[in-house]
Amino acid sequence: MSKRIAILGGGPSGLAVLRAFESARRKGAEIPEIVCYEKQSDCGGMWNYNWRTGLDEFGEPVHASMYRYLWSNGPKECLEFADYSFEEHFGRPIPSFPPRAVLHDYIKGRIEKSNVRGYIKLNHAVRHVTYDAGTEKFLVTVKDLKADVLETSAFDYVVCATGHFSTPNVPYFEGVEAFPGRVLHAHDFRSADEFAGKNVLLIGASYSSEDIGIQCMKYGAKSVTFSYRTKAMGFDWPEGFSEVPLLEKVVGKIAHFKDGTRKEVDAIVLCTGYLHHYPFLDDDLRLKSRNRLYPEGLYKGIFWVPNPRFMYVGAQDQFFTFNMFDAQAWYARDVVLGRIPLPDAAAMEADIKGWVAKEEALEDASQMIDFQTEYVRELILATDYPRLDVDEVARMFKEWEHHKVENILTYRDRSHRSTLTGTLAPKHHTPWMQALDDSLEAFLATMPSQAAE
Amino acid sequence: MSKRIAILGGGPSGLAVLRAFESARRKGAEIPEIVCYEKQSDCGGMWNYNWRTGLDEFGEPVHASMYRYLWSNGPKECLEFADYSFEEHFGRPIPSFPPRAVLHDYIKGRIEKSNVRGYIKLNHAVRHVTYDAGTEKFLVTVKDLKADVLETSAFDYVVCATGHFSTPNVPYFEGVEAFPGRVLHAHDFRSADEFAGKNVLLIGASYSSEDIGIQCMKYGAKSVTFSYRTKAMGFDWPEGFSEVPLLEKVVGKIAHFKDGTRKEVDAIVLCTGYLHHYPFLDDDLRLKSRNRLYPEGLYKGIFWVPNPRFMYVGAQDQFFTFNMFDAQAWYARDVVLGRIPLPDAAAMEADIKGWVAKEEALEDASQMIDFQTEYVRELILATDYPRLDVDEVARMFKEWEHHKVENILTYRDRSHRSTLTGTLAPKHHTPWMQALDDSLEAFLATMPSQAAE
Repeated sequence: MSKRIAILGGGPSGLAVLRAFESARRKGAEIPEIVCYEKQSDCGGMWNYNWRTGLDEFGEPVHASMYRYLWSNGPKECLEFADYSFEEHFGRPIPSFPPRAVLHDYIKGRIEKSNVRGYIKLNHAVRHVTYDAGTEKFLVTVKDLKADVLETSAFDYVVCATGHFSTPNVPYFEGVEAFPGRVLHAHDFRSADEFAGKNVLLIGASYSSEDIGIQCMKYGAKSVTFSYRTKAMGFDWPEGFSEVPLLEKVVGKIAHFKDGTRKEVDAIVLCTGYLHHYPFLDDDLRLKSRNRLYPEGLYKGIFWVPNPRFMYVGAQDQFFTFNMFDAQAWYARDVVLGRIPLPDAAAMEADIKGWVAKEEALEDASQMIDFQTEYVRELILATDYPRLDVDEVARMFKEWEHHKVENILTYRDRSHRSTLTGTLAPKHHTPWMQALDDSLEAFLATMPSQAAE
Repeated sequence: MSKRIAILGGGPSGLAVLRAFESARRKGAEIPEIVCYEKQSDCGGMWNYNWRTGLDEFGEPVHASMYRYLWSNGPKECLEFADYSFEEHFGRPIPSFPPRAVLHDYIKGRIEKSNVRGYIKLNHAVRHVTYDAGTEKFLVTVKDLKADVLETSAFDYVVCATGHFSTPNVPYFEGVEAFPGRVLHAHDFRSADEFAGKNVLLIGASYSSEDIGIQCMKYGAKSVTFSYRTKAMGFDWPEGFSEVPLLEKVVGKIAHFKDGTRKEVDAIVLCTGYLHHYPFLDDDLRLKSRNRLYPEGLYKGIFWVPNPRFMYVGAQDQFFTFNMFDAQAWYARDVVLGRIPLPDAAAMEADIKGWVAKEEALEDASQMIDFQTEYVRELILATDYPRLDVDEVARMFKEWEHHKVENILTYRDRSHRSTLTGTLAPKHHTPWMQALDDSLEAFLATMPSQAAE
């Protein structure tokens, strides 16, 4: 009887696994029977925009942390799939920093091309996964949300690809329960319009805070205050933005910061990160980790050492994204197909230990980029995934970091060169700070007015 | 070996069950070993205010639909525990419509008095419950949220008392995904201050819509528009309020209603009800019901007919609340203790059928009150729960309905008489529409300024 593999989640990571197996199948390999369970009504994971917050129409926690008006905050040339260029998908070169709808279209185009839709069960939420040592099978119980029934099936392998940017980390600040205005986590942020004319306080000094703060200003906020715990972002902020130390307490509408300064604010956005959260996994399968480049317990960042037929894809913090998930998926596939042998547990632990020690010694973003570049390189060299030029991607990441430091409001107006096609991206018709329409049609129009015609 | 019972949830319903068993124990009965699992860090269920929305600090869906500035929307004399008067708790008579903190204090006072805290495991979320026909035990798996581990225990009985006003029912309306302002369900409503100066649209024509709409106006909203599906609330609304048919679509900030009228709005609050949602229950134990006075499948509104050692408390729509949960808890307890025999499945089904047929023939609120009064009366007469004067409670409910029709903004300024002590409640020092401070201290102060002193 053929082996069975369950893939939990149909976002970029889960889709990468489907694509990896399908690629092998087309080349003549025998592959296991695959079932991919996706909670949402469409694949694409985080790139599915969802206006809902909190719980969805079936009572399930809303996966999306995606907000309106989000444009890629990294060059698309750094996340390009090695086997499917943006140029191939759109039929022509497009600018380097596309809005959400354009990236979603790209992801979906690759799925249509690779014909893996048939493996995906949409509207199926994973309820619990246990390992039965007697039968050596994983028992996966899912809820068919539309039929409103539970189903349990046995699998030989499971890939957990449910992401780790969906469950907010929400710290408490004194007085927040009596703040006379909205308090939300970035996970529930949807529309910057809501904050027009307001003084917005953002807690946190990473990507969410930076991007949501700038968005709010772009759509008419009166002021944006960033509050950091350890270190300011330090960009050369234009008027209207400020950075202050950590929030100490809120008294009425007055935010008090650790340096003794105060500011009256109308809304508080907690950009305080996300938790690894796998409420559907038994304890013996469950990764417990903070967001980091090399979570402990995962050999090659993928295989759960206590039970390596249980795998994680996309569980690390990320510079590389779509193409790293591909690299992991191809590697995981080759282990499942018996093409790559896994060493014993002690050797796996030793390998992890080496990576973790290196990660812990990293001192800046540039070193972190190099670290992840080495990781992705190693995975790619082991499989038949197309030879992505990871060194060129690393160079672009560093260039992008420099652009951000030069001007945090204009780095998205820069152009980068595809490592696949060699084409330098055209400039967008409108500077990003003036581009208020984030639709695919507006972005792909060659003139600013064309989309509306 | 003694029997074991699990109580899922430490809100008013779960606490009623604990109190019922403890009452029997004090009178000399042998009772089962009890474990009550409560997800939150304190008992009190919905009456625990939580500033959080969406997911909590452990990644669990936030139970609370409770918002700031909520005052009881029914007379406290209608929900008074038959064995613990408000007068006993507060040492003197208090007005009829207390704010949340006062009711929470009352619930907790009764718990302290009855000494049932020791049964409650706080910060324990129920993950899954299955029935093992071989051992005839329920297997209850819970997550100890602080320790971050799963535990499974076997029980002879389970009472599901997790409530059914926590999982929002959120319909889609055309254009809502592009509305340039906040869209939220009542479940995520916290602070009316956020809507000061705004035109607020509320979808729904029941308690949430009525109360949140009035609150928003009380705290400075510019206008409040109620949109109904089948029937307007029909109160004699003062200026600033209006009722319109169902929302058809939103285009930009313009809401279009089924009667062709339009209104520019700044925020949309979906007061569209809640779902019975028990994601932790196996299908063979799970109640599927809309919100109704007599859910099908529950004998006496409590016992799950296919497996009557599995019970629900508080699973029906409610006029009666705290004292009805008590009546159910005492009845459930007496069945567990063997004092009340259960008939066979066919007889249980026939009994349910009778009640459901009666419910389906009800024509107005007055008849619904009478229906639930008969239900509570029957339960109370079967046990040693103190003889609550249910007819007087029913009369008060109807009087309250009349007060609401007379003036929806002033019904909370009325006084009602305790069925326990006979005392007529004193008037509050400030008319409700002017009472902006909802703290326990302000409410209990005998003069409006006293709390601040």
